[in-house]
Amino acid sequence: MTRHERMLGALTGQPVDRTPVWFMRQAGRYLPEYMEVRSRVSFLDLCHDPDLAVLVTLQPLDRFDLDAAIIFSDILTIPEAMGQEVQFIKGRGPVLPKPIRSRDDVRALKQPDVADALPVVPESLRRFIKARPDTPILGFAGAPWTLFCYMVEGSGSKNWENAKKMLWTDPEASQELLNRLADMVGDYLQTQVDAGALAVQMFDTWAGALSQEDFKRWALPAAQRALSRVKGAPRLYFTKDSSPFLHLLKSTGADAVGLDWRVDIPMAREILGDMPIQGNLDPIALYAPPEEVARRTRAILKQAGPVGHVFNLGHGVTPNTPIEGVHAMVEAVRSYRHDEA
Amino acid sequence: MTRHERMLGALTGQPVDRTPVWFMRQAGRYLPEYMEVRSRVSFLDLCHDPDLAVLVTLQPLDRFDLDAAIIFSDILTIPEAMGQEVQFIKGRGPVLPKPIRSRDDVRALKQPDVADALPVVPESLRRFIKARPDTPILGFAGAPWTLFCYMVEGSGSKNWENAKKMLWTDPEASQELLNRLADMVGDYLQTQVDAGALAVQMFDTWAGALSQEDFKRWALPAAQRALSRVKGAPRLYFTKDSSPFLHLLKSTGADAVGLDWRVDIPMAREILGDMPIQGNLDPIALYAPPEEVARRTRAILKQAGPVGHVFNLGHGVTPNTPIEGVHAMVEAVRSYRHDEA
Repeated sequence: MTRHERMLGALTGQPVDRTPVWFMRQAGRYLPEYMEVRSRVSFLDLCHDPDLAVLVTLQPLDRFDLDAAIIFSDILTIPEAMGQEVQFIKGRGPVLPKPIRSRDDVRALKQPDVADALPVVPESLRRFIKARPDTPILGFAGAPWTLFCYMVEGSGSKNWENAKKMLWTDPEASQELLNRLADMVGDYLQTQVDAGALAVQMFDTWAGALSQEDFKRWALPAAQRALSRVKGAPRLYFTKDSSPFLHLLKSTGADAVGLDWRVDIPMAREILGDMPIQGNLDPIALYAPPEEVARRTRAILKQAGPVGHVFNLGHGVTPNTPIEGVHAMVEAVRSYRHDEA
Repeated sequence: MTRHERMLGALTGQPVDRTPVWFMRQAGRYLPEYMEVRSRVSFLDLCHDPDLAVLVTLQPLDRFDLDAAIIFSDILTIPEAMGQEVQFIKGRGPVLPKPIRSRDDVRALKQPDVADALPVVPESLRRFIKARPDTPILGFAGAPWTLFCYMVEGSGSKNWENAKKMLWTDPEASQELLNRLADMVGDYLQTQVDAGALAVQMFDTWAGALSQEDFKRWALPAAQRALSRVKGAPRLYFTKDSSPFLHLLKSTGADAVGLDWRVDIPMAREILGDMPIQGNLDPIALYAPPEEVARRTRAILKQAGPVGHVFNLGHGVTPNTPIEGVHAMVEAVRSYRHDEA
C-alpha cells in the first residue's frame, strides 16, 4: 500500500496493511533543525513564506518514516486575513492587540475572498506535493469557536472570560462572528483540498472551555457550518477535551475525530461506532524510556484495532520532547501487526 | 430541614426539602472584604492563622444564604508540613523552590504526625463551628496525585513534564511518594472530620493531566488509599476533568463526586448510578446577566433532579466574578422547587 492509500483507508474506515502514523506539530520546536530556521526568521515569516513553510514541513520526514505531513502554518492566519493584527511574542504566545469586543468590532472585520487573502498555504501545499509526491499532506484550520476565543480574548487564556462574556452579552454579534468565521474556515479548508491536501483537520482546541449547553449552541453549529462547505477529502475534527463531547462529535459532520490523550478508546469506540478515530498517546509519554514509549504505543494500537485508526499524539508534541521518544513511537507503529497482537 | 440535614441528605442520596448550595473558593478574591484582609496579610499568613482563616471563611456567609462553608486553607499545607518550602508569588501562583526530583528527595521529606504538624485547619474548624453553629463546614485536602504534581514540578504547569517524567523514570520512588502523600492526606482529612467537618472534599485538580492508563495506575489507587483512611463523614472527590474518568470515579471509594462544568449531567447519572453528585455551573457563566445565570442554574437543577445533588460551580469562582452573578445563582437554587419544574 502507498502512504496515500494507507492514510485515506484509515480515515475512511477501509482495511489497511498497517495503522498509519503522523503527529500534531511534527514540524516544530522539538527539532533542532526547526530551531535553526527560527533563529533566522520569525514565526510569522515562516507562516507567510511558502518556501520556508515547505522547508520546515519536510524536516520531520527526513528523520522519521511518517505516513503523512501536515503543512506548516498557524490557525491565526484567518483573523489576520480579516484585518485583525496578530503578534507572536516569545514566552507569551499569540497576542491580538485590538481584541473584538463589540458588534462594531465584528462589523469592522473584512470578509475577503479566501483564495485572494490566504494564498500561502495552498501554494505551500502545491510545492510540498512537488517536492515529496510519495507523502500525503494534510491541510488544517482553526475551528470557528477556537478562532473566536483568540479574537475576542486577544490572547491565550485560562478561563476565556472575555470570549464567553461576549456570548452572554451580545449573542447576535457573537453568532454573526461565528458564522463569518465558519464561512472563512470552510472555504479555506476547501482551497487546501483543491490544492491537493489528502485530508484536512479542523482544530477546535478550546471547545473544552464550554459547557454542554454552550458547546451545542455555539461551537458545534459553527463547526458543522464550516465542515459542510468542504468536499472531496476526509475532514477531521479535533478538540483538546474530547471526552465531554464524544456523544456529539458525529454531529460535527466530520469524517473522523482526533481524540485527546485522556480519552478511553474503548469508550470512544462504543460511542462513535464506526467513525474513524485519530490519536491518542500522551505527548509527555514521549519523555519516557524508548521501550516504555513503544509499549504505550502498542497498547493504543491494540485498543483501537486495525480499522479506522490513524495513530497520533493526543495533543501537539512539546518543545522539550526527546527525539528518541518520537523515534520509538514511530517505529512501534510501523512494526506493529494487528494479527499478531 | 436544617442546613446540616440538607447537606448530609444530599451527599448521601436521601430526600431533601431543596437542593443545597455552596461553591468552590467561595471565600476568595472576588469578595472586596477578602481583598481588604489580603491587603494586610499574605496568603500564607491566612492559611496559618485560625482567626484569619475563620474570618474569611465567614465572609461569603454574610452576603449569601449558603448551605455550607468550606474552611479557608490551601492544598499545599501538606508539602509544607513534610518539609518542602512553599511560596506564593503574585501573578505566578505557588512556587516550591526545591522540587522533588529523585528518590533521595523523597526520602528527605518528613512524614510527621498530622495532628502535630497540621493543627491550623482543625482548630479553624472548631472555631468556625462555635461562631456559626447553624452552618455546616466542609474540610478539604489536595489529592495525592495533585500534590505530587506541585511537589515534583515545583510550580503550576501546563504539561506537568517533570511530574510525569518522575513517574516514567523512577516508578518506585514515585509510588513511595504517592503512598506517603495518601497517608498524610487521609489522616489530615480524618482530623478535619474529628474537628467537626460535616464532609470533606479531596481535590484531584490535575488528574486530568493523565491518560486512562496513568490515572488507573497512579492517581486512582492513591485517591483510594487516602479516602480509605477517612471514616465518619461523606467524602467528596473532585477533579477538573471529570468526563474522561466518570466510569472510574466510583472506585475512588468516595461517597459523592464533584463534576466539572463540561460534564453532561444525564451521562454522569447514567454512569454513576445513584452516587450523589455535586456541580456543575460554568464559573464564567456568573459573568452573564442575572436572569441568564438563574436560567442556567435552574437547567442544572432540573437535569440533576431532587435527590443526590449538591449545587456548586464546576470549578472555583474566579477573581473578577461579579457579586450579582453569585447572588443570582444562590437565589435561583434557593427558590427552585423540583416538583414544580
